[in-house]
Amino acid sequence: MTMKLWYWPEIQGRGEFIRLALEAAGIAYEDCARVSGADALIADLDARKGRAPFAPPYLDIDGFTIAQVADILLYLGDRHDLAPSRIADRYWVHQLQLTIADLVAEVHNVHHPVAVMDYYDDQKPEAARAARQFREERLPKFLDYFEQAAECNDGPWMIDHRWTYADTSLFQLIEGLRYAFPRRMATLTPDYPALARIHGLVADLPGIRQYLASNRRIAFNEQGIFRHYPELDDE
Amino acid sequence: MTMKLWYWPEIQGRGEFIRLALEAAGIAYEDCARVSGADALIADLDARKGRAPFAPPYLDIDGFTIAQVADILLYLGDRHDLAPSRIADRYWVHQLQLTIADLVAEVHNVHHPVAVMDYYDDQKPEAARAARQFREERLPKFLDYFEQAAECNDGPWMIDHRWTYADTSLFQLIEGLRYAFPRRMATLTPDYPALARIHGLVADLPGIRQYLASNRRIAFNEQGIFRHYPELDDE
Repeated sequence: MTMKLWYWPEIQGRGEFIRLALEAAGIAYEDCARVSGADALIADLDARKGRAPFAPPYLDIDGFTIAQVADILLYLGDRHDLAPSRIADRYWVHQLQLTIADLVAEVHNVHHPVAVMDYYDDQKPEAARAARQFREERLPKFLDYFEQAAECNDGPWMIDHRWTYADTSLFQLIEGLRYAFPRRMATLTPDYPALARIHGLVADLPGIRQYLASNRRIAFNEQGIFRHYPELDDE
Repeated sequence: MTMKLWYWPEIQGRGEFIRLALEAAGIAYEDCARVSGADALIADLDARKGRAPFAPPYLDIDGFTIAQVADILLYLGDRHDLAPSRIADRYWVHQLQLTIADLVAEVHNVHHPVAVMDYYDDQKPEAARAARQFREERLPKFLDYFEQAAECNDGPWMIDHRWTYADTSLFQLIEGLRYAFPRRMATLTPDYPALARIHGLVADLPGIRQYLASNRRIAFNEQGIFRHYPELDDE
Protein backbone atom coordinates (compact mmCIF):
# COMPACT_ATOMS: atom_id res chain seq x y z
CA MET A 1 0.00 0.00 0.00
CA THR A 2 1.47 3.35 -1.09
CA MET A 3 1.92 5.91 1.65
CA LYS A 4 -0.05 9.10 1.25
CA LEU A 5 1.79 12.30 2.11
CA TRP A 6 -0.36 15.39 2.69
CA TYR A 7 1.40 18.73 2.51
CA TRP A 8 1.04 22.12 0.79
CA PRO A 9 1.61 21.55 -2.92
CA GLU A 10 3.45 24.76 -3.80
CA ILE A 11 6.23 24.92 -1.21
CA GLN A 12 9.03 22.79 0.15
CA GLY A 13 8.25 23.90 3.70
CA ARG A 14 8.32 21.41 6.54
CA GLY A 15 7.02 18.70 4.22
CA GLU A 16 10.35 18.67 2.40
CA PHE A 17 12.03 16.93 5.32
CA ILE A 18 9.61 14.05 4.80
CA ARG A 19 9.85 14.06 1.01
CA LEU A 20 13.65 13.87 1.16
CA ALA A 21 13.68 10.96 3.60
CA LEU A 22 11.18 9.03 1.48
CA GLU A 23 13.05 9.79 -1.76
CA ALA A 24 16.44 8.86 -0.32
CA ALA A 25 15.06 5.56 0.93
CA GLY A 26 13.20 4.81 -2.30
CA ILE A 27 9.88 4.47 -0.47
CA ALA A 28 6.87 4.81 -2.79
CA TYR A 29 4.51 7.62 -1.77
CA GLU A 30 1.77 9.75 -3.22
CA ASP A 31 2.18 13.49 -2.67
CA CYS A 32 -1.60 13.89 -2.56
CA ALA A 33 -2.06 17.65 -2.70
CA ARG A 34 0.33 17.96 -5.64
CA VAL A 35 -2.21 15.90 -7.56
CA SER A 36 -5.45 17.18 -6.11
CA GLY A 37 -4.57 20.67 -4.89
CA ALA A 38 -4.40 22.70 -1.69
CA ASP A 39 -8.19 22.76 -1.34
CA ALA A 40 -8.19 18.97 -1.21
CA LEU A 41 -5.59 19.12 1.57
CA ILE A 42 -7.71 21.57 3.57
CA ALA A 43 -10.79 19.40 3.01
CA ASP A 44 -8.92 16.25 4.05
CA LEU A 45 -7.61 17.89 7.23
CA ASP A 46 -11.00 19.39 8.14
CA ALA A 47 -12.74 16.06 7.69
CA ARG A 48 -10.46 14.24 10.12
CA LYS A 49 -11.75 13.32 13.55
CA GLY A 50 -10.06 11.63 16.46
CA ARG A 51 -6.27 11.46 16.23
CA ALA A 52 -6.03 14.25 13.69
CA PRO A 53 -2.95 16.28 12.77
CA PHE A 54 -2.59 19.81 14.10
CA ALA A 55 -1.15 20.87 10.75
CA PRO A 56 0.48 19.40 7.63
CA PRO A 57 2.66 17.53 6.88
CA TYR A 58 1.10 14.20 7.77
CA LEU A 59 1.38 10.69 6.44
CA ASP A 60 -1.52 8.35 5.97
CA ILE A 61 -0.46 4.71 5.95
CA ASP A 62 -3.38 2.44 5.36
CA GLY A 63 -5.60 4.35 7.83
CA PHE A 64 -2.86 5.07 10.39
CA THR A 65 -2.13 8.79 10.39
CA ILE A 66 0.99 10.41 11.77
CA ALA A 67 1.91 14.10 11.90
CA GLN A 68 4.75 16.33 13.15
CA VAL A 69 7.95 16.12 11.11
CA ALA A 70 10.08 14.65 13.90
CA ASP A 71 7.43 12.05 14.78
CA ILE A 72 7.02 11.01 11.13
CA LEU A 73 10.79 10.62 10.79
CA LEU A 74 10.90 8.65 14.04
CA TYR A 75 8.30 6.31 12.60
CA LEU A 76 10.06 6.00 9.23
CA GLY A 77 13.34 5.47 11.04
CA ASP A 78 11.86 2.63 13.10
CA ARG A 79 9.99 0.95 10.29
CA HIS A 80 11.91 1.67 7.12
CA ASP A 81 15.54 1.63 8.13
CA LEU A 82 16.18 5.39 8.01
CA ALA A 83 17.71 5.44 11.48
CA PRO A 84 20.78 3.76 12.96
CA SER A 85 20.20 0.36 14.50
CA ARG A 86 21.63 0.90 18.01
CA ILE A 87 19.08 2.15 20.53
CA ALA A 88 21.29 4.93 21.92
CA ASP A 89 21.93 6.12 18.36
CA ARG A 90 18.19 6.33 17.75
CA TYR A 91 17.73 8.84 20.57
CA TRP A 92 20.75 10.77 19.30
CA VAL A 93 19.46 10.99 15.72
CA HIS A 94 16.10 12.15 17.09
CA GLN A 95 17.80 14.73 19.29
CA LEU A 96 19.60 16.10 16.22
CA GLN A 97 16.32 16.21 14.29
CA LEU A 98 14.63 18.15 17.10
CA THR A 99 17.50 20.64 17.18
CA ILE A 100 17.25 21.06 13.40
CA ALA A 101 13.52 21.70 13.94
CA ASP A 102 14.37 24.40 16.49
CA LEU A 103 16.59 26.14 13.96
CA VAL A 104 13.90 25.83 11.27
CA ALA A 105 11.43 27.49 13.66
CA GLU A 106 13.90 30.34 14.23
CA VAL A 107 14.33 30.74 10.46
CA HIS A 108 10.55 31.06 10.11
CA ASN A 109 10.46 33.54 12.96
CA VAL A 110 12.92 35.80 11.12
CA HIS A 111 10.34 36.72 8.47
CA HIS A 112 7.33 36.34 10.76
CA PRO A 113 8.51 37.67 14.12
CA VAL A 114 5.35 39.26 15.49
CA ALA A 115 2.40 37.78 13.61
CA VAL A 116 2.62 34.25 12.26
CA MET A 117 -0.78 34.64 10.56
CA ASP A 118 0.05 37.92 8.75
CA TYR A 119 2.24 38.68 5.74
CA TYR A 120 5.93 39.49 5.82
CA ASP A 121 5.11 42.90 4.33
CA ASP A 122 3.16 43.69 7.50
CA GLN A 123 6.20 43.12 9.75
CA LYS A 124 9.27 44.20 7.80
CA PRO A 125 10.95 46.45 10.40
CA GLU A 126 10.53 43.75 13.05
CA ALA A 127 11.87 41.14 10.62
CA ALA A 128 14.96 43.25 9.92
CA ARG A 129 15.74 43.31 13.61
CA ALA A 130 15.08 39.59 14.05
CA ALA A 131 17.27 38.82 11.03
CA ARG A 132 20.25 40.71 12.43
CA GLN A 133 20.41 38.69 15.63
CA PHE A 134 19.68 35.50 13.76
CA ARG A 135 22.55 36.02 11.30
CA GLU A 136 25.06 37.19 13.87
CA GLU A 137 24.32 35.05 16.92
CA ARG A 138 21.81 32.26 16.50
CA LEU A 139 22.87 30.86 13.12
CA PRO A 140 26.59 30.42 13.99
CA LYS A 141 25.63 28.94 17.37
CA PHE A 142 23.51 26.25 15.71
CA LEU A 143 26.02 25.57 12.92
CA ASP A 144 28.84 25.27 15.46
CA TYR A 145 26.75 22.69 17.24
CA PHE A 146 25.96 20.61 14.15
CA GLU A 147 29.58 20.77 12.96
CA GLN A 148 30.80 19.52 16.31
CA ALA A 149 28.14 16.77 16.27
CA ALA A 150 29.31 15.65 12.81
CA GLU A 151 32.96 15.74 13.86
CA CYS A 152 32.36 13.41 16.79
CA ASN A 153 31.32 10.64 14.41
CA ASP A 154 33.93 8.23 13.03
CA GLY A 155 32.26 7.95 9.64
CA PRO A 156 31.51 10.59 7.00
CA TRP A 157 27.82 10.98 7.98
CA MET A 158 26.17 12.52 11.04
CA ILE A 159 25.89 9.16 12.77
CA ASP A 160 27.16 5.75 11.92
CA HIS A 161 28.65 4.76 8.57
CA ARG A 162 25.50 5.30 6.52
CA TRP A 163 22.95 8.03 5.96
CA THR A 164 20.03 8.52 8.35
CA TYR A 165 17.20 11.04 8.44
CA ALA A 166 19.50 13.43 10.31
CA ASP A 167 21.60 13.65 7.13
CA THR A 168 18.71 14.32 4.76
CA SER A 169 17.37 16.93 7.20
CA LEU A 170 20.77 18.57 7.54
CA PHE A 171 21.02 18.66 3.74
CA GLN A 172 17.71 20.51 3.53
CA LEU A 173 18.76 22.91 6.29
CA ILE A 174 21.95 23.84 4.42
CA GLU A 175 20.08 24.12 1.11
CA GLY A 176 17.50 26.40 2.67
CA LEU A 177 20.02 28.58 4.49
CA ARG A 178 22.07 29.01 1.31
CA TYR A 179 18.92 30.07 -0.54
CA ALA A 180 17.63 32.43 2.15
CA PHE A 181 20.90 33.95 3.33
CA PRO A 182 23.38 33.56 0.43
CA ARG A 183 25.71 36.34 1.56
CA ARG A 184 25.82 35.21 5.18
CA MET A 185 26.29 31.58 4.22
CA ALA A 186 29.10 32.48 1.80
CA THR A 187 30.92 33.95 4.79
CA LEU A 188 30.14 31.08 7.15
CA THR A 189 30.46 28.02 4.91
CA PRO A 190 34.28 27.69 5.04
CA ASP A 191 34.03 27.30 8.82
CA TYR A 192 31.84 24.21 8.53
CA PRO A 193 33.61 21.60 6.37
CA ALA A 194 31.82 18.61 7.89
CA LEU A 195 28.42 20.13 7.14
CA ALA A 196 29.45 20.93 3.57
CA ARG A 197 30.69 17.34 3.17
CA ILE A 198 27.42 15.85 4.42
CA HIS A 199 25.42 18.21 2.21
CA GLY A 200 27.39 16.94 -0.79
CA LEU A 201 27.08 13.29 0.18
CA VAL A 202 23.30 13.55 0.51
CA ALA A 203 23.01 15.42 -2.82
CA ASP A 204 24.83 12.48 -4.37
CA LEU A 205 22.63 9.69 -2.99
CA PRO A 206 20.97 8.04 -6.02
CA GLY A 207 17.43 8.67 -4.76
CA ILE A 208 18.17 12.30 -3.96
CA ARG A 209 20.00 12.94 -7.21
CA GLN A 210 16.98 11.68 -9.16
CA TYR A 211 14.60 13.65 -6.98
CA LEU A 212 16.44 16.96 -7.29
CA ALA A 213 16.51 16.58 -11.08
CA SER A 214 12.79 15.80 -11.23
CA ASN A 215 9.79 18.10 -11.24
CA ARG A 216 8.81 16.58 -7.89
CA ARG A 217 11.33 18.96 -6.27
CA ILE A 218 9.55 22.30 -5.90
CA ALA A 219 11.84 25.35 -6.22
CA PHE A 220 12.42 27.48 -3.12
CA ASN A 221 10.08 30.47 -3.10
CA GLU A 222 8.79 33.24 -0.84
CA GLN A 223 5.83 31.27 0.47
CA GLY A 224 7.93 28.62 2.21
CA ILE A 225 10.05 28.62 5.36
CA PHE A 226 13.36 29.51 3.71
CA ARG A 227 12.72 32.82 1.92
CA HIS A 228 15.21 35.02 0.15
CA TYR A 229 14.55 38.61 1.10
CA PRO A 230 17.81 40.40 0.20
CA GLU A 231 17.17 43.06 2.85
CA LEU A 232 17.35 40.36 5.56
CA ASP A 233 20.71 39.01 4.40
CA ASP A 234 24.19 40.40 4.95
CA GLU A 235 27.74 39.15 5.12
CA MET B 1 22.05 4.80 39.78
CA THR B 2 20.26 8.11 40.27
CA MET B 3 19.55 10.11 37.12
CA LYS B 4 21.14 13.51 36.94
CA LEU B 5 18.96 16.29 35.55
CA TRP B 6 20.74 19.45 34.42
CA TYR B 7 18.60 22.54 34.03
CA TRP B 8 18.57 26.18 35.10
CA PRO B 9 18.01 26.22 38.86
CA GLU B 10 15.81 29.31 39.18
CA ILE B 11 13.08 28.70 36.62
CA GLN B 12 10.55 26.06 35.69
CA GLY B 13 11.23 26.61 31.97
CA ARG B 14 11.47 23.66 29.63
CA GLY B 15 13.05 21.57 32.39
CA GLU B 16 9.73 21.48 34.22
CA PHE B 17 8.28 19.06 31.65
CA ILE B 18 11.02 16.62 32.66
CA ARG B 19 10.74 17.28 36.39
CA LEU B 20 6.99 16.63 36.32
CA ALA B 21 7.32 13.35 34.44
CA LEU B 22 10.00 12.13 36.84
CA GLU B 23 8.04 13.22 39.90
CA ALA B 24 4.78 11.68 38.68
CA ALA B 25 6.54 8.39 38.03
CA GLY B 26 8.44 8.44 41.31
CA ILE B 27 11.80 8.16 39.54
CA ALA B 28 14.73 9.25 41.73
CA TYR B 29 16.75 12.08 40.21
CA GLU B 30 19.21 14.72 41.23
CA ASP B 31 18.38 18.24 40.04
CA CYS B 32 22.08 19.05 39.81
CA ALA B 33 22.12 22.81 39.29
CA ARG B 34 19.66 23.33 42.13
CA VAL B 35 22.41 21.97 44.38
CA SER B 36 25.51 23.34 42.69
CA GLY B 37 24.21 26.44 40.88
CA ALA B 38 23.85 27.84 37.39
CA ASP B 39 27.62 28.26 36.98
CA ALA B 40 28.06 24.53 37.54
CA LEU B 41 25.50 23.89 34.81
CA ILE B 42 27.34 26.17 32.38
CA ALA B 43 30.64 24.50 33.27
CA ASP B 44 29.15 21.03 32.83
CA LEU B 45 27.69 21.93 29.44
CA ASP B 46 30.90 23.61 28.24
CA ALA B 47 33.01 20.62 29.25
CA ARG B 48 30.98 18.16 27.21
CA LYS B 49 32.40 16.83 23.97
CA GLY B 50 30.94 14.46 21.43
CA ARG B 51 27.20 13.89 21.72
CA ALA B 52 26.62 17.04 23.73
CA PRO B 53 23.31 18.83 24.31
CA PHE B 54 22.57 22.01 22.37
CA ALA B 55 20.98 23.46 25.51
CA PRO B 56 19.49 22.39 28.85
CA PRO B 57 17.53 20.45 29.94
CA TYR B 58 19.47 17.23 29.64
CA LEU B 59 19.58 13.98 31.56
CA ASP B 60 22.73 12.11 32.40
CA ILE B 61 22.09 8.45 33.07
CA ASP B 62 25.26 6.64 34.02
CA GLY B 63 27.25 8.33 31.24
CA PHE B 64 24.48 8.27 28.62
CA THR B 65 23.32 11.84 27.97
CA ILE B 66 20.06 12.81 26.35
CA ALA B 67 18.73 16.30 25.60
CA GLN B 68 15.68 17.93 23.99
CA VAL B 69 12.50 17.71 26.07
CA ALA B 70 10.58 15.55 23.60
CA ASP B 71 13.51 13.16 23.19
CA ILE B 72 13.99 12.83 26.95
CA LEU B 73 10.30 12.09 27.39
CA LEU B 74 10.44 9.57 24.54
CA TYR B 75 13.29 7.83 26.35
CA LEU B 76 11.55 7.92 29.73
CA GLY B 77 8.36 6.70 28.08
CA ASP B 78 10.16 3.74 26.54
CA ARG B 79 12.20 2.81 29.58
CA HIS B 80 10.16 3.85 32.58
CA ASP B 81 6.60 3.21 31.61
CA LEU B 82 5.50 6.83 31.10
CA ALA B 83 4.02 6.09 27.69
CA PRO B 84 1.18 3.83 26.56
CA SER B 85 2.17 0.31 25.64
CA ARG B 86 0.70 0.05 22.12
CA ILE B 87 3.13 1.11 19.38
CA ALA B 88 0.63 3.34 17.54
CA ASP B 89 -0.18 5.06 20.85
CA ARG B 90 3.52 5.81 21.37
CA TYR B 91 3.72 7.81 18.15
CA TRP B 92 0.49 9.57 19.09
CA VAL B 93 1.70 10.57 22.57
CA HIS B 94 4.91 11.85 20.99
CA GLN B 95 2.96 13.79 18.37
CA LEU B 96 0.98 15.47 21.16
CA GLN B 97 4.21 16.30 23.02
CA LEU B 98 5.70 17.88 19.89
CA THR B 99 2.56 19.97 19.41
CA ILE B 100 2.72 21.08 23.05
CA ALA B 101 6.35 22.04 22.37
CA ASP B 102 5.24 24.13 19.38
CA LEU B 103 2.80 26.03 21.59
CA VAL B 104 5.49 26.51 24.26
CA ALA B 105 7.78 27.99 21.58
CA GLU B 106 5.00 30.39 20.54
CA VAL B 107 4.49 31.41 24.18
CA HIS B 108 8.19 32.21 24.43
CA ASN B 109 8.02 34.14 21.18
CA VAL B 110 5.31 36.40 22.61
CA HIS B 111 7.75 38.06 25.03
CA HIS B 112 10.82 37.61 22.79
CA PRO B 113 9.50 38.19 19.25
CA VAL B 114 12.48 39.87 17.60
CA ALA B 115 15.56 39.10 19.69
CA VAL B 116 15.72 35.85 21.64
CA MET B 117 19.03 36.91 23.22
CA ASP B 118 17.83 40.37 24.41
CA TYR B 119 15.54 41.38 27.27
CA TYR B 120 11.78 41.74 27.10
CA ASP B 121 12.18 45.43 27.93
CA ASP B 122 14.06 45.86 24.66
CA GLN B 123 11.14 44.57 22.57
CA LYS B 124 7.93 45.61 24.34
CA PRO B 125 6.03 47.14 21.38
CA GLU B 126 6.78 44.08 19.25
CA ALA B 127 5.73 41.82 22.13
CA ALA B 128 2.40 43.65 22.47
CA ARG B 129 1.65 42.97 18.83
CA ALA B 130 2.76 39.33 19.06
CA ALA B 131 0.64 38.86 22.20
CA ARG B 132 -2.52 40.11 20.52
CA GLN B 133 -2.41 37.55 17.73
CA PHE B 134 -1.33 34.84 20.14
CA ARG B 135 -4.28 35.46 22.48
CA GLU B 136 -6.89 35.87 19.78
CA GLU B 137 -5.88 33.32 17.16
CA ARG B 138 -3.07 30.94 18.04
CA LEU B 139 -4.00 30.06 21.62
CA PRO B 140 -7.63 29.06 20.88
CA LYS B 141 -6.47 27.12 17.81
CA PHE B 142 -4.07 25.03 19.91
CA LEU B 143 -6.52 24.58 22.80
CA ASP B 144 -9.28 23.50 20.38
CA TYR B 145 -6.86 20.91 19.07
CA PHE B 146 -5.88 19.50 22.47
CA GLU B 147 -9.51 19.45 23.65
CA GLN B 148 -10.54 17.49 20.58
CA ALA B 149 -7.58 15.13 21.09
CA ALA B 150 -8.64 14.52 24.70
CA GLU B 151 -12.28 13.99 23.70
CA CYS B 152 -11.37 11.27 21.20
CA ASN B 153 -10.05 9.09 24.02
CA ASP B 154 -12.38 6.70 25.85
CA GLY B 155 -10.72 7.21 29.20
CA PRO B 156 -10.32 10.33 31.33
CA TRP B 157 -6.69 10.97 30.26
CA MET B 158 -5.20 12.13 26.96
CA ILE B 159 -4.50 8.57 25.86
CA ASP B 160 -5.39 5.24 27.29
CA HIS B 161 -6.78 4.69 30.77
CA ARG B 162 -3.73 5.94 32.67
CA TRP B 163 -1.52 9.00 32.70
CA THR B 164 1.35 9.39 30.25
CA TYR B 165 3.87 12.16 29.70
CA ALA B 166 1.33 13.91 27.44
CA ASP B 167 -0.81 14.45 30.55
CA THR B 168 1.96 15.85 32.74
CA SER B 169 3.02 18.13 29.88
CA LEU B 170 -0.55 19.28 29.29
CA PHE B 171 -0.85 20.02 33.01
CA GLN B 172 2.23 22.23 32.83
CA LEU B 173 0.95 23.97 29.72
CA ILE B 174 -2.36 24.85 31.42
CA GLU B 175 -0.56 25.92 34.62
CA GLY B 176 1.76 28.18 32.65
CA LEU B 177 -0.97 29.69 30.50
CA ARG B 178 -3.10 30.45 33.56
CA TYR B 179 -0.10 32.17 35.16
CA ALA B 180 0.94 34.14 32.08
CA PHE B 181 -2.49 35.03 30.67
CA PRO B 182 -4.93 34.89 33.63
CA ARG B 183 -7.54 37.13 32.05
CA ARG B 184 -7.51 35.38 28.69
CA MET B 185 -7.55 31.94 30.30
CA ALA B 186 -10.48 32.94 32.54
CA THR B 187 -12.42 33.63 29.35
CA LEU B 188 -11.30 30.50 27.53
CA THR B 189 -11.28 27.86 30.29
CA PRO B 190 -15.05 27.10 30.25
CA ASP B 191 -14.72 26.05 26.60
CA TYR B 192 -12.20 23.34 27.43
CA PRO B 193 -13.68 20.97 30.01
CA ALA B 194 -11.52 17.98 29.04
CA LEU B 195 -8.32 20.00 29.47
CA ALA B 196 -9.49 21.29 32.86
CA ARG B 197 -10.30 17.71 33.90
CA ILE B 198 -6.88 16.40 32.90
CA HIS B 199 -5.19 19.34 34.63
CA GLY B 200 -7.04 18.39 37.83
CA LEU B 201 -6.30 14.68 37.51
CA VAL B 202 -2.56 15.33 37.10
CA ALA B 203 -2.52 17.76 40.05
CA ASP B 204 -4.03 14.96 42.11
CA LEU B 205 -1.49 12.25 41.22
CA PRO B 206 0.30 11.37 44.47
CA GLY B 207 3.78 12.16 43.10
CA ILE B 208 2.63 15.48 41.66
CA ARG B 209 0.69 16.46 44.80
CA GLN B 210 3.82 15.93 46.89
CA TYR B 211 6.00 17.73 44.37
CA LEU B 212 3.78 20.81 44.11
CA ALA B 213 3.70 21.10 47.91
CA SER B 214 7.49 20.79 48.17
CA ASN B 215 10.22 23.38 47.71
CA ARG B 216 11.39 21.43 44.67
CA ARG B 217 8.64 23.19 42.69
CA ILE B 218 10.02 26.59 41.73
CA ALA B 219 7.40 29.36 41.52
CA PHE B 220 6.62 30.84 38.10
CA ASN B 221 8.60 34.01 37.51
CA GLU B 222 9.58 36.46 34.78
CA GLN B 223 12.77 34.66 33.81
CA GLY B 224 11.01 31.51 32.60
CA ILE B 225 8.93 30.73 29.54
CA PHE B 226 5.53 31.50 31.03
CA ARG B 227 5.76 35.12 32.20
CA HIS B 228 3.02 37.30 33.57
CA TYR B 229 3.26 40.73 31.98
CA PRO B 230 -0.19 42.26 32.58
CA GLU B 231 0.19 44.45 29.48
CA LEU B 232 0.33 41.31 27.31
CA ASP B 233 -2.85 39.81 28.73
CA ASP B 234 -6.47 40.68 27.95
CA GLU B 235 -9.87 39.02 28.07
